[in-house]
Amino acid sequence: MRLSQYLAPTLKETPTDAVVISHQLMLRAGMIRKLASGLYTWLPLGLRTLRKVERIVREEMDRSGAQEVLMPAVQPAELWQETARWDKFGPELLRIQDRHQRDFCVGPTHEEVITDIARNELNSYKQLPVNFYQIQTKFRDETRPRFGVMRAREFLMKDAYSFHISSESLQATYQVMYDTYSRIFDRLGLDYRAVLADTGSIGGSASHEFHVLAKSGEDAIAFSDSSEYAANIEKAETLPSTESCPTASQELKKVATPEVHTIDQLCQFLSVEASQTLKTLIVVGQTEENEPVKLVALVIRGDHELNEIKASHLPEVTSPLTFATDEQIKQVVGCEPGSLGPIGLSIPVIVDYSAAHLADFICGANENGFHLTGANWERDCQYTQTADLRNIIEGDPSPCGKGHINIKRGIEVGHIFQLGDKYSESMGATVLNENGKAVAMKMGCYGIGVSRVVAAAIEQNHDENGIIWPDAIAPFQLGLIPLNMDRSDAVKNTAEQLYQQLQQAGYDVLLDDRDRKTSPGVKFADMELVGIPHRLVIGDRGLEKGIIEYKHRASDEKIEVPLGELMTFLSGKVSIK
Amino acid sequence: MRLSQYLAPTLKETPTDAVVISHQLMLRAGMIRKLASGLYTWLPLGLRTLRKVERIVREEMDRSGAQEVLMPAVQPAELWQETARWDKFGPELLRIQDRHQRDFCVGPTHEEVITDIARNELNSYKQLPVNFYQIQTKFRDETRPRFGVMRAREFLMKDAYSFHISSESLQATYQVMYDTYSRIFDRLGLDYRAVLADTGSIGGSASHEFHVLAKSGEDAIAFSDSSEYAANIEKAETLPSTESCPTASQELKKVATPEVHTIDQLCQFLSVEASQTLKTLIVVGQTEENEPVKLVALVIRGDHELNEIKASHLPEVTSPLTFATDEQIKQVVGCEPGSLGPIGLSIPVIVDYSAAHLADFICGANENGFHLTGANWERDCQYTQTADLRNIIEGDPSPCGKGHINIKRGIEVGHIFQLGDKYSESMGATVLNENGKAVAMKMGCYGIGVSRVVAAAIEQNHDENGIIWPDAIAPFQLGLIPLNMDRSDAVKNTAEQLYQQLQQAGYDVLLDDRDRKTSPGVKFADMELVGIPHRLVIGDRGLEKGIIEYKHRASDEKIEVPLGELMTFLSGKVSIK
Repeated sequence: MRLSQYLAPTLKETPTDAVVISHQLMLRAGMIRKLASGLYTWLPLGLRTLRKVERIVREEMDRSGAQEVLMPAVQPAELWQETARWDKFGPELLRIQDRHQRDFCVGPTHEEVITDIARNELNSYKQLPVNFYQIQTKFRDETRPRFGVMRAREFLMKDAYSFHISSESLQATYQVMYDTYSRIFDRLGLDYRAVLADTGSIGGSASHEFHVLAKSGEDAIAFSDSSEYAANIEKAETLPSTESCPTASQELKKVATPEVHTIDQLCQFLSVEASQTLKTLIVVGQTEENEPVKLVALVIRGDHELNEIKASHLPEVTSPLTFATDEQIKQVVGCEPGSLGPIGLSIPVIVDYSAAHLADFICGANENGFHLTGANWERDCQYTQTADLRNIIEGDPSPCGKGHINIKRGIEVGHIFQLGDKYSESMGATVLNENGKAVAMKMGCYGIGVSRVVAAAIEQNHDENGIIWPDAIAPFQLGLIPLNMDRSDAVKNTAEQLYQQLQQAGYDVLLDDRDRKTSPGVKFADMELVGIPHRLVIGDRGLEKGIIEYKHRASDEKIEVPLGELMTFLSGKVSIK
Repeated sequence: MRLSQYLAPTLKETPTDAVVISHQLMLRAGMIRKLASGLYTWLPLGLRTLRKVERIVREEMDRSGAQEVLMPAVQPAELWQETARWDKFGPELLRIQDRHQRDFCVGPTHEEVITDIARNELNSYKQLPVNFYQIQTKFRDETRPRFGVMRAREFLMKDAYSFHISSESLQATYQVMYDTYSRIFDRLGLDYRAVLADTGSIGGSASHEFHVLAKSGEDAIAFSDSSEYAANIEKAETLPSTESCPTASQELKKVATPEVHTIDQLCQFLSVEASQTLKTLIVVGQTEENEPVKLVALVIRGDHELNEIKASHLPEVTSPLTFATDEQIKQVVGCEPGSLGPIGLSIPVIVDYSAAHLADFICGANENGFHLTGANWERDCQYTQTADLRNIIEGDPSPCGKGHINIKRGIEVGHIFQLGDKYSESMGATVLNENGKAVAMKMGCYGIGVSRVVAAAIEQNHDENGIIWPDAIAPFQLGLIPLNMDRSDAVKNTAEQLYQQLQQAGYDVLLDDRDRKTSPGVKFADMELVGIPHRLVIGDRGLEKGIIEYKHRASDEKIEVPLGELMTFLSGKVSIK
């Protein structure tokens, strides 16, 4: 492509409304433009990358044996009413009435539509397993769309749905999708992790998220330094210590702690480490209908964070987790929340594994303005049970049993999910099994945020000058910068020849043929901003020596390549598209 | 692809709600399924063809120098208000309110969005001309969606928009698009015509429709038997005769014609040809504000049809054309509409060229129950002017001056249009010209109904057994039918080998590996229904002789091909995808 004839409107200044780096760089590199809140037009340069991502996703989905379909973006309300999601989905579902006042929505996902197709077209276990996918525009009416295409309202998604006669078959296809996703992100050239995810309210037995690692990622991922284990921090288990509990060496003392309401204040006041203190949180317990409210105490180490998802999975507490009010705490315990501790409580006490493994700990005295030091389990108080209640942290033993935990941040770009029969049951999607009996199919679903992948790739691969594309998804692989092309015939002729030759060899080439009004400095800066991975500079000085200058976007090294050796040189650096 | 693992649910029966053949065959061949009125899911087989059409369109648009972008499907109302189309567009525009009660629509077209991008990103004449296109899902809330994907509410469209500093530049790009469209439809393998179209209410100077010829087409196209000339029948001009008018030979007579109200009745009653009679139609004339209603008489030959679009272009009459009421006619002429004629009228009389070229004609006497015979212009009555008022018919001289007119029916699948500055004016899309003055850009727009092309291809290419795909857009090029594959090892091994070999050679192959429960008859019927152009049958009897049977979908001839010569044989018949 000749840049002089191409709409690639780069910007020098960072647009003020763009917060994250990918949003800034996509605007500055002329990849996207905002049409309205959460709605973006993909300009030519951006679309080239989007299509390359799409193509890799499609090729690998095809290779996995999945069958591509294309479902409508606009969906009738009736199907969503069958699964009760018409009411449950909330305002993220963009609802429409057509000219005949019939209800529709612009689909944020397609479980209902594909299940409708499956119940109509699949009749026998012999037609299973089957996996359908589409690459299609979706709409989610986010309250606060932000971060450009990272969290846009309209976005491009690959969604797949598989149907099975048994859980075993579902698990087999789930594994195929796990492997397919790994191949896709490998081919995209991204540093990613498949992480165990919480299955949330949908239930289902297994779920993995695929995260592109980036410092700016919204999610924290815990992974082992010695194995493949990786999990969303919300999901990563902490293990009970295998060592025996340290023994008590101090006496229980009550100390006055005026003005101490937080762990930080406590540590400073007593000059102790937070890891030697306990934090006690009172939550609402699970009760039968018409029973009065019960409270439950959750105890973790002062340096740890409560994992609310883990806590809400305890049968003893309500889900979603509900904290007791100050009033309720005062009534039952008799103090403010800042003075709580496990000793002498009349309610159930559930203690995190690490907190249960402390001796001589410090905790609130359940009396305003006082704490206890030298406290010990068994000797001074009992707990009802121990449990995994906290977020895992760096250095914890990996729950897989191998190595210790590192924590990195990630951007979720894919999600695979064993749905089970949630949709097939409610929509009556059955097939006849081997015995001629109608049974609900098991389902899996598998998503990739195609447009989000583009933003995530930039979050992971950039520097202060702009984007650094992985080869596979660069809008162009090679950038050709002729210096003073409109003054030097030698430069012009070489540039034109090379441009033709490289294109014929199958490379994606961007030729910066803008005239002298665009300075070489601007050309270099634009090529770096846009992130073309391989750059060739053609200048009179080099040509006199028969030389072209090569530089990789990620490196400072400039390599002088004899013109005659250029094609061979490149074939070792750049793979043909 | 192995048919046993592929969702291609063919139907024996024609679904009752499908009226046109393409809709019937797309359902029967398992290409599409209806989700709701005017909303269709593309199943794997249908999507393969859709993607092949899309690919050809994209390749040729790229080759033309157009730049691909992707605009949001959901568009903000503000832009549509700038061009006043928010109010004008009517209920076909699917309007939405988002969660913040802001107005949006699901875009049926993208003039407003692209003009917004152009006014933001284009500043100088040096950036012009430029042509942007996208291949994207559109929505048009048709009152009565029908004919399957031919007139669906949600459909896939390629739309392009070009921007220019001058009309000459617009015309040049228009010609490039004309040639590009011709290449696209050539490559698709369709019999089509580019026809001159009426530019309708949008104005603009030139417009061509691209029609796929098919007996079932909604539009009538007039084209010359001796030149490239083709025009929508609404647009095709009729020429005044170059011969001198025949001279009068009869006397004017008034004859009683009781119970005669139509041309048919008149011809029967007087035993004359309709081509010797005149039909007089009274319409409302153009008046100044506050002037009383004026009437105008339009006169055409009894065997011709009034072309209302041509008539409405006359400055003397109102647009849109409005017929006078019986009451108005009675008041001004004094008779019923069935007895009208041009003689003795006190209102302007505009006569079609052919009607003006008659002598001794028969017409109404402007008196109920009477007609005149032997009437002649000049001698018996005067006309105000002659004009082109009628639809062209078969055998008329071509308006291009070469040959005569044939009429065929077509399905509109593409439309190219010189828009001028309609949108750029109302939205302020200007660039600086060579003199540094801001001028509104000229625009062209160019559409192809990608999903409609699939239906149109079927309307043109089918027989009583199913679809007959052109090679370029067949879902699979080659169909492989092994007979009794699960009983004969020889058949099975040959089929498997051939399947691998043909795929490796680059062919799209569909292997019907369904087991013995599907009879050979059903396999043959399905392969014909789905329309795979090249069929290979592998059977024990043939294999004993070392032979495979080849048949083209459109031919009855079965060719026995020695196994060893098969690849060479095919390479002459089927081009690699």
